[in-house]
Amino acid sequence: MSVAASIQARTSSSSYDINRTLSQSEIGALIGLTTQAPSAFNMQNWKFVAVHSPEAKARLLPLAYGQTKVVEAAVTFIVCGTLDQHLTMPAALAPTRDAGIIDQATYDGWVGAVNDMYAANPVMQRDEAVRSASLAAMTLMLAAQEQGLVSCPMIGFDPAGVAAAFELAATDVPVMLVTVGYTGPSNWPKKPRKPVADVLAFV
Amino acid sequence: MSVAASIQARTSSSSYDINRTLSQSEIGALIGLTTQAPSAFNMQNWKFVAVHSPEAKARLLPLAYGQTKVVEAAVTFIVCGTLDQHLTMPAALAPTRDAGIIDQATYDGWVGAVNDMYAANPVMQRDEAVRSASLAAMTLMLAAQEQGLVSCPMIGFDPAGVAAAFELAATDVPVMLVTVGYTGPSNWPKKPRKPVADVLAFV
Repeated sequence: MSVAASIQARTSSSSYDINRTLSQSEIGALIGLTTQAPSAFNMQNWKFVAVHSPEAKARLLPLAYGQTKVVEAAVTFIVCGTLDQHLTMPAALAPTRDAGIIDQATYDGWVGAVNDMYAANPVMQRDEAVRSASLAAMTLMLAAQEQGLVSCPMIGFDPAGVAAAFELAATDVPVMLVTVGYTGPSNWPKKPRKPVADVLAFV
Repeated sequence: MSVAASIQARTSSSSYDINRTLSQSEIGALIGLTTQAPSAFNMQNWKFVAVHSPEAKARLLPLAYGQTKVVEAAVTFIVCGTLDQHLTMPAALAPTRDAGIIDQATYDGWVGAVNDMYAANPVMQRDEAVRSASLAAMTLMLAAQEQGLVSCPMIGFDPAGVAAAFELAATDVPVMLVTVGYTGPSNWPKKPRKPVADVLAFV
């Protein structure tokens, strides 16, 4: 499936085939594609909780305000961005240096830059958590579409409740839920978008 | 090009062919795909400034701390998410109702929900600006990849300076720059990612 076709075909789907599941291997392969998304300084400040057991889905349901798609989809990902990027980025970037893609001086420069940019800036930290998680989530949804799956990004959930119920770390920001599974019988068509001229300026 | 191949092939590219440009028509087509990205309540709270003239590129260069890719790429998008979603969402969603995809009661419910969720919550407003802009930016980069283009998301710029120099509205948050163009001679290979098992938990 071409990228353009996948982008055009993808809609936010609330109706799922409750009889079709995804294996842990299939879910892992999706996340393997997801983490090819870019992140600032390759910091990869994301985590994914795949809610797929009946027990865990039942735990999530009230925290998603009763939206049944989190139970009916094969899996609901809690897509998290992580904070304290200045503490986690050095280890995340080390394999890039070790592979010889960047040299030690570049590595040191980037580590210093991240410390300067993030350590004392909670707004920047939160922005980066939302940004990285969202870049990953979009990659996940398009990868799923190509595999014959449908998806729905969701902001309608209780972040603090989800963090507590799924034992997220204090530095894990649950940025969105993303349901993924096989389509059910009653999904909406794609919702119309604004004309390009309304959102694009040339300079 | 398949979605998986595009995801795997895409890297963050700093080296561009300075002799190859993109027409306004080509840029517009890319944004037409970009805006197929999802947004909460289909609010489409994004704007794109395509910096492609020599004059505008020169204006952007110091605000991107001298990173020459913003001059050498065919175009650099200032990808903005917009605030005050409770004020802009009713108009953005109206065509979805008018097309009969949702009924008036659903429309009214969503408009009320957005007012409740965003009007008095600046953190939620900013999160949504970053989230929507990032979902769109990832869509843009994968669409570009399929067209034989390369891209680079950038957070290394002066947001206030960019807002002033390009006359952004007070409600436009410049979430990232995205350079797009034809590849130059000296791009890095893809940087290694963490093992999936390090970022994925099953429950």
